[in-house]
Amino acid sequence: MREVRSIATIASHSALQILRGAKSEGFKTIVLCPRDRVSLYSRFLNFIDDIVLIDGMGDVCSDEAIRRLNEEGAVIVPHGSFVEYIGVEGLERLDVPIFGNRRLMIWEADQFLKMRMLERSGVKVPRVFRSPEEVDRLVIVKMHGAKGGRGYFLARSPEEVISKCKSLGISPDECIIQEFVIGTPMYFQYFNSVVMKRLELLGCDIRYESDVDGLRRVPVPYADSLSEPTFTVVGNIPLVVRESLLVKVFEYGEGFVRAAEELVPPGVIGPFCLEGVCRSDLEIVIFEFSGRIVAGTNLYINGSPYSWLYFDEPMSMGRRIAREIRMAEEHGMLDKVLT
Amino acid sequence: MREVRSIATIASHSALQILRGAKSEGFKTIVLCPRDRVSLYSRFLNFIDDIVLIDGMGDVCSDEAIRRLNEEGAVIVPHGSFVEYIGVEGLERLDVPIFGNRRLMIWEADQFLKMRMLERSGVKVPRVFRSPEEVDRLVIVKMHGAKGGRGYFLARSPEEVISKCKSLGISPDECIIQEFVIGTPMYFQYFNSVVMKRLELLGCDIRYESDVDGLRRVPVPYADSLSEPTFTVVGNIPLVVRESLLVKVFEYGEGFVRAAEELVPPGVIGPFCLEGVCRSDLEIVIFEFSGRIVAGTNLYINGSPYSWLYFDEPMSMGRRIAREIRMAEEHGMLDKVLT
Amino acid sequence: MREVRSIATIASHSALQILRGAKSEGFKTIVLCPRDRVSLYSRFLNFIDDIVLIDGMGDVCSDEAIRRLNEEGAVIVPHGSFVEYIGVEGLERLDVPIFGNRRLMIWEADQFLKMRMLERSGVKVPRVFRSPEEVDRLVIVKMHGAKGGRGYFLARSPEEVISKCKSLGISPDECIIQEFVIGTPMYFQYFNSVVMKRLELLGCDIRYESDVDGLRRVPVPYADSLSEPTFTVVGNIPLVVRESLLVKVFEYGEGFVRAAEELVPPGVIGPFCLEGVCRSDLEIVIFEFSGRIVAGTNLYINGSPYSWLYFDEPMSMGRRIAREIRMAEEHGMLDKVLT
Repeated sequence: MREVRSIATIASHSALQILRGAKSEGFKTIVLCPRDRVSLYSRFLNFIDDIVLIDGMGDVCSDEAIRRLNEEGAVIVPHGSFVEYIGVEGLERLDVPIFGNRRLMIWEADQFLKMRMLERSGVKVPRVFRSPEEVDRLVIVKMHGAKGGRGYFLARSPEEVISKCKSLGISPDECIIQEFVIGTPMYFQYFNSVVMKRLELLGCDIRYESDVDGLRRVPVPYADSLSEPTFTVVGNIPLVVRESLLVKVFEYGEGFVRAAEELVPPGVIGPFCLEGVCRSDLEIVIFEFSGRIVAGTNLYINGSPYSWLYFDEPMSMGRRIAREIRMAEEHGMLDKVLT
Repeated sequence: MREVRSIATIASHSALQILRGAKSEGFKTIVLCPRDRVSLYSRFLNFIDDIVLIDGMGDVCSDEAIRRLNEEGAVIVPHGSFVEYIGVEGLERLDVPIFGNRRLMIWEADQFLKMRMLERSGVKVPRVFRSPEEVDRLVIVKMHGAKGGRGYFLARSPEEVISKCKSLGISPDECIIQEFVIGTPMYFQYFNSVVMKRLELLGCDIRYESDVDGLRRVPVPYADSLSEPTFTVVGNIPLVVRESLLVKVFEYGEGFVRAAEELVPPGVIGPFCLEGVCRSDLEIVIFEFSGRIVAGTNLYINGSPYSWLYFDEPMSMGRRIAREIRMAEEHGMLDKVLT
Repeated sequence: MREVRSIATIASHSALQILRGAKSEGFKTIVLCPRDRVSLYSRFLNFIDDIVLIDGMGDVCSDEAIRRLNEEGAVIVPHGSFVEYIGVEGLERLDVPIFGNRRLMIWEADQFLKMRMLERSGVKVPRVFRSPEEVDRLVIVKMHGAKGGRGYFLARSPEEVISKCKSLGISPDECIIQEFVIGTPMYFQYFNSVVMKRLELLGCDIRYESDVDGLRRVPVPYADSLSEPTFTVVGNIPLVVRESLLVKVFEYGEGFVRAAEELVPPGVIGPFCLEGVCRSDLEIVIFEFSGRIVAGTNLYINGSPYSWLYFDEPMSMGRRIAREIRMAEEHGMLDKVLT
C-alpha cells in the first residue's frame, strides 16, 4: 500500500474516538455499522463520512464490504470488539490492510497465550493455578474467551471453584484460575510508535465494572445476602499514577514490546494496554493485556494528563493512530505499520 | 423578547459554569447572590459582571430584583438549587424569562410526577412499592421533596421501612419506596437543542455521595457498627461509558424528550439528566431525572469526552446554554427556548 | 536574586508537571535525577533541558549540584518527595533559592506541628487522642514521619491500638491517634499568589490508595479474612465539589494562609493542599495539609475545572508556579516568593 485515503472501523468500542481522530488528521472516515447502530453513528456525520451497512457479525468480511474498503483506500483500525465481530479466522484472512499486528490480537483472544506473553515480558504476574485442587487463596476464574469481564467469578477453595464451574455448566479446564491480587486496579494505555521508535504512555484509567463497583455502595449488613459480584466493564474513570511508579510502568511496557517482537513478530504496532493492580508495597502485578486500543482511551478524546507531556495539541489514542499512519506514509513505512 | 443582553442565575449549584459560559458567548452576566456567598462569587469578577444582592430564598422574586433583571434584558438560567430557592409557586409567577421549560421543573420536584414522566419515556425504571407491606427486597426510601440525596434511606423489609419512617417522624405515604437496583450508578447529561433540532449527549458522571462513598473505605470488620449510610451529593467524578451502551442512552434521551413534549408541552428545552444504574446484564435502569442543568456538568468546564465529539471548541453545558440562546436570537426563535 | 533563568526539581512526585509548566513559561528546565530514574525522565527531553545526575538522597545538597544550579540561575521547586530526599536539615541549609516557604515544609513533616497549624487555621479537625487509653471510636494511627499514607493503621479500642503498635515495633507515643471521620475524602489544591494577592483554588481530587481502595472490590463474604487495609497513595482521581461547599473551601484556605503567616512567616507562598473528608451534614473536616505542590495536581496538566475559571489557557499547578516566578521577577518581588 502506498497511500491511505480512508480509515475504517467497526461501529463499537472506541469507534467514535478512532474516527474523530482520523478526521482531525485529514482522513476520510468509514464506519462498518450494523443496522441497529446506525441511529447512534449517524449522529456524528460531522466526522463520519461514510456509514457502510453490515448485516451483523460475519458480514464484515463479505466480498462486498472488502471491495468497498479497498476501493476507498481504507485501513481498518481494530478495537476490542473487532475480534468478537469477525472472529480469529476472519481476522487472519481479512483482505484489507489493518493498522497493527493482527497476530497479536489472536494471542490476546486466548487466556493461555495471553499469560505466556506476559510472562515472557518479565512483568510481575499473578500466580496461576493449574487445577482447582491447588487453590489455596482467593482466586478469579476466567472462562476461556470471556470478554470484557463477563463470565468471571471469584472463589477461594477447590470446592468452590468446582461447584461454581458446575453450576455454570463448564469444566474447570476451560478456565484460567488466577490468584486475585489485592491492590488498586490500574490500566496503562501505551502507544508503541514504530515510526518514531518510541514507546509513549498516553493515559491511565480504572475500569468501572457492574455490578462489583455497585455492590460497594451497599452497606455491609445488606451486602451478604446479595448475588455474586460480576465484572462486566461498563465504563471508565480517569486516573493518574504516582510519578515514581512510571519507571516501572515504562519498563513493563518495554518488556512487553520486546516479548511481542519475539513471540509474534514484527511485534506491537501502535496501541496496547497492560492491565494490573498496584499492591500496597508498590509492586504492580499485571493480569491481562490488550493488543490494540482499549475503551479506557475514550476518556481522553481531548488529550490525557500524559498525552499533554508529549504533544502540544489534543492527542487522543484514536488521533495518535491516524497520526502514525500519516507519518508512516510520509516516511515510506506503511508496510511497517499495516499487516 | 427580542434580544437577550444578560444571563443571570442564582449563586449556587452550577452558577460559576453558567456564568463563565455566558461570558464566553458574549453576554453580560449577573449573579443573584445572598450576602453570605458574596465572598465566593466576588472572586470571579473576571466573568461575573454584576452581583445583585438578595436577602435570601424568597427575595429572588422581589419586585426590586425583577425590575433589575428586566432592565438588564436578562434571561434566568435555572439550576438544581433554583426551585429550592424560589419554590414551585415562585417559579410559576416569576416575571422574568427563563431558559427552559419551567413546568418541567415543577414535575421534577414531585417524586410521583417524576416517576410518571420516566414511565411515559419508555425507559426501564425500578419497581416502585405502593406500600411498605409489599417490600420484599432491598429498597431505597425517598421522602417527597428530599433534595440531592439527603433524607434517603435503605431498608429490606416492611418492618424496617415502617420503623425507620417512624424514627424520622414521617409517614410512609410521604415517601416513594423504590427497589434498590444493584449496578453501577451513571448520570447522563443531555442537551436538547430546540434550535438545531438535535439531542446531544454532553457528558456522563458518577455522583460522589457522603457518607455512602466514604463508608466503602471502612474495612468490613469495622463497618457493621457504623451508622446508616446517607446519600448527600457532595461532588462528581468523570465517567465515560461503554460505547455500545450509547445506543440505549440516546434512545432513553429521545424517549424522555417525547414524553416531556406530551406531558409538559412544549417539552424539554436545553439541559436535562437521566440518572440510573447499569446492571451487569448491560440494562440501564433510570431512577430519577433532572429537568435542568445538573452539577455533574461542573466537571466539564473545558469540555467533556462527549462534547468534543460535537464541537471543536471547549463546550461546557453552561456555555452550550448561552450558545443556544444566541442561536435562538439569530433565528428569531427566542420564544421557543424561553418560558 | 534578580533574574531566574532555570527551574529545577527532583526527579519524582510532580516533576514532569513542574518542568512542563516551567517550559511553557519560557524557563530552562533541570531535573536532579538519580541514576535509576534517568530512563524515565530522558523520555521527556522535549521539555527537560538538563538532567543533572545525583547519586541518591543526600547528594542533592552536594557542592557540585549546588554549584551547577547556581550557575544556571536556578530556582528549585520543591514537592512531596523533596523533604524525603534532602531531609529537614538539608532543606534548611540548601544554598539554592527555593520557590515557597521552606519552613512550612518543616512543619508539614511533623504530625504534631501539622495539627497545630490546622487548629490555628480555624478549620474543623478530627479529634486527636492523647493516649491509646482515651480511644472510644474508630481511629487512624499515623506514625510520626509516615509518608504518603504508608504505615497508617485503623483501630477502635485502646487494646487494639496498643497491640498493633507492639506488632509494628513502635511506641504509641511516636504516633498521632486521630478520630477516623466518616465521610468522603476530598483534597483541595490551592495556590496562594503573593504577587496577585489572591488565593486560587486550582483543583480537587481523591487519592487512590492501595490496598484500601482495592479491598472495596472484594465481596463482603471474602473480605473479612483479608489482611489489614493499608493507605499507600498510588494515584489520584479527578473530582469537582458541590458548588455551595466552595464558600467553606475558600474560608478554610484563607484561614490556613493566615495561620501560616503567623506561625511560619512570611506564610504560604504558592501551592498548598488541605486534605479532608466531607461528612454527610456537609461539614468538611481537615486531617492533614501539604505545604507545597501535591501529586493530585498531576491530573490537571491541561488545566482543571477550577483553573479554567481563572485562566483562558491551560494552567497546571506546575505552570502556575512558573508564571508566579515570572510575574514576581517583573514586579521586582522575587524576594517575596523565594526563600
